[in-house]
Amino acid sequence: MALKSRMVYGSLCSPATLKVLACLFEHDIDFEFVPVDLEAGEHKQQPFLAMSPFGQVPVFDDADIKRFESRAIIRSMAHEYGKKGEELIYWDGRKQAIVSTWVDVEDHKFEPPALKLISELVNKPSVGLSPDQSVVAEAEAELAKVLDVYEARLSKLKYLASDDYTIADLLHLPNLQALLGTKAKQQLFESRPHLIAWCFDILARPAWAKVLEMQKMAQA
Amino acid sequence: MALKSRMVYGSLCSPATLKVLACLFEHDIDFEFVPVDLEAGEHKQQPFLAMSPFGQVPVFDDADIKRFESRAIIRSMAHEYGKKGEELIYWDGRKQAIVSTWVDVEDHKFEPPALKLISELVNKPSVGLSPDQSVVAEAEAELAKVLDVYEARLSKLKYLASDDYTIADLLHLPNLQALLGTKAKQQLFESRPHLIAWCFDILARPAWAKVLEMQKMAQA
Ligand SMILES: N[C@@H](CCC(=O)N[C@@H](CS)C(=O)NCC(=O)O)C(=O)O
Ligand SMILES: N[C@@H](CCC(=O)N[C@@H](CS)C(=O)NCC(=O)O)C(=O)O
Repeated sequence: MALKSRMVYGSLCSPATLKVLACLFEHDIDFEFVPVDLEAGEHKQQPFLAMSPFGQVPVFDDADIKRFESRAIIRSMAHEYGKKGEELIYWDGRKQAIVSTWVDVEDHKFEPPALKLISELVNKPSVGLSPDQSVVAEAEAELAKVLDVYEARLSKLKYLASDDYTIADLLHLPNLQALLGTKAKQQLFESRPHLIAWCFDILARPAWAKVLEMQKMAQA
Repeated sequence: MALKSRMVYGSLCSPATLKVLACLFEHDIDFEFVPVDLEAGEHKQQPFLAMSPFGQVPVFDDADIKRFESRAIIRSMAHEYGKKGEELIYWDGRKQAIVSTWVDVEDHKFEPPALKLISELVNKPSVGLSPDQSVVAEAEAELAKVLDVYEARLSKLKYLASDDYTIADLLHLPNLQALLGTKAKQQLFESRPHLIAWCFDILARPAWAKVLEMQKMAQA
């Protein structure tokens, strides 16, 4: 029996899960975290598949309405639970449109090369494998082009979509956290002053500290 | 000098452009279409890059506010111009959340294998090349799994997000149109009765007929 009416099914190793957790903490939403055992393939079996037909984490169960796809979860959470004056997504159509564009940029431009780099520079070494240097070079070059656009944008605005923090920024947290622990920090981030200032700003959100705390407690 | 206050910069060969055009026609929005010469690399130069920093079409210029990323454009258009009682996206948070999930499904699950198949079965033959059969087989297998989920969903609901047509359905139009002109029609679509009925239903939208008419006129 579930103790709380809101549950997140996911994994603390999954960037998509961590994004949803950051959004829950931003909105002070009380929830229960239910770990899904990806190694055992729990996500590819019932009852999980009934909640997430493509067999992926996370799932957000909000008072019995089950949702999958992390960005869709985060958008709707920001709409439903947005705090007056501190909305992470706007109700105003024109402002919301800009947030939407930068949510799609994270999805289509930032995350693919970021995940390739993290796979080579973090995941492989963690199991004793060496990174494939040609994959690293290609992903770095791809990400560098994207970060040039970010640097130009962040030299004009405090955050990606506006001068306020929004879900477009939040979505970057897990992959930024991982990348700043690698050699990419110096090469790709510190060489871009507005970009690195934005990284430090958003990684210092108390909501993100709570996600990292959850990870630490789970490892302990 | 622009004649109209709303403009779409794009290409009639680009699925992302065609999606935005379908959405404009659904909302009876008056606009001017400005072709971008992709072969000449117009999208990788100024002044285009100032509107679309990653150098991709389409761009929607709505009374001087320039937007890129087709799904973000379509979401915001549906919000701003939605016709009472026929909204293609809901203002109600819980309903909107479901549309958002299926927008992300089109983006992450449907479109990648669909584009791979279209590249092999449509684009290559159109320039005299033969499809790579191993790529075809892999993309078909990937798409088949996605279409199984669609078939199950569409056996319970008339459309992907609800019993009403929404932007989640609309986003599929260009790639469905292309796939149904290939051998995938029989193998992947006609074998799934609810799926093929949904395809015929949404491809018959008058707004989509107007997009096809624009393509025909441009070719003439
Ligand atoms: N687009 C999905 C992607 C979710 C995703 O990639 N989840 C990964 C973990 S981060 C997963 O479930 N992997 C297992 C699998 O795909 O089989 C979202 O944003 O929720
Ligand atoms: N995620 C973007 C993708 C746009 C896209 O892929 N555009 C293609 C044409 S369909 C393009 O501009 N290709 C040229 C290029 O990427 O260099 C969107 O949905 O607007």
